[in-house]
Amino acid sequence: MFELDGRLAADTFVLGSTSLNRVLLMNDARFPWLILVPERLDVSEPFELSEADQGQLWQESMRLGGAMKAHFAADKINVAALGNQVAQLHVHHIARFHADAAWPGPVWGVGSAVPYEAAAVEALTHELRSVLRQPLSLTEAAQH
Amino acid sequence: MFELDGRLAADTFVLGSTSLNRVLLMNDARFPWLILVPERLDVSEPFELSEADQGQLWQESMRLGGAMKAHFAADKINVAALGNQVAQLHVHHIARFHADAAWPGPVWGVGSAVPYEAAAVEALTHELRSVLRQPLSLTEAAQH
Repeated sequence: MFELDGRLAADTFVLGSTSLNRVLLMNDARFPWLILVPERLDVSEPFELSEADQGQLWQESMRLGGAMKAHFAADKINVAALGNQVAQLHVHHIARFHADAAWPGPVWGVGSAVPYEAAAVEALTHELRSVLRQPLSLTEAAQH
Repeated sequence: MFELDGRLAADTFVLGSTSLNRVLLMNDARFPWLILVPERLDVSEPFELSEADQGQLWQESMRLGGAMKAHFAADKINVAALGNQVAQLHVHHIARFHADAAWPGPVWGVGSAVPYEAAAVEALTHELRSVLRQPLSLTEAAQH
């Protein structure tokens, strides 16, 4: 049975699930940063998914990126499947701004995450669930 | 008419083209690093492509990643569409190794590129064109 990697679980909040992906919000208030994790066993590389799952992953990734760019009025969306440190396949989607803490470099390894305050994360998860419900057919899931 | 961004052109060698993408080899001998550039005008984000082009981009990206992992016996493939510095849409594919110069971090901003020697890049481009001909339906193009 699929289980979210422990490090991903510790660093994120669960927004919900699509029919393929767990949708996570990274606990770093510096950047709007969402992660898709296909709920499949023992997959590290996106090309290890079935062709159908690959198609769905990238379709949802594109919809997520488009929704984030519009909602946050971002200057750029960064999309990446790296996985050097956490083997479980996960795809980053980060809304970037010309004035953000890492621009124009990538966000990884720059400074330290700034955890959200409780009220802020409650408001943001509520907002993002509403924004993503339609484009991703997102259903809210209990955190497991 | 599509024209490759000047910075991408300066930093890479052209391996060829698919029916959608220009296929480039980054001139950095530290990492096997290939780039797909959809030959479309004024596109910065992958989700700005038509749905058909999005599907083809990711299908070719997955095939490229799989071919690179097998050919280089890589520990991990990093796939990323960042584009903070070069606006023209381009998708990085980097074969990563536990002993490489940036592991386990991402490659961007780490040290300086080590240009290939002429004989090495001639051999590698020949080899990669052969490896990618079938999975990507790659045709060799003159560098333009």
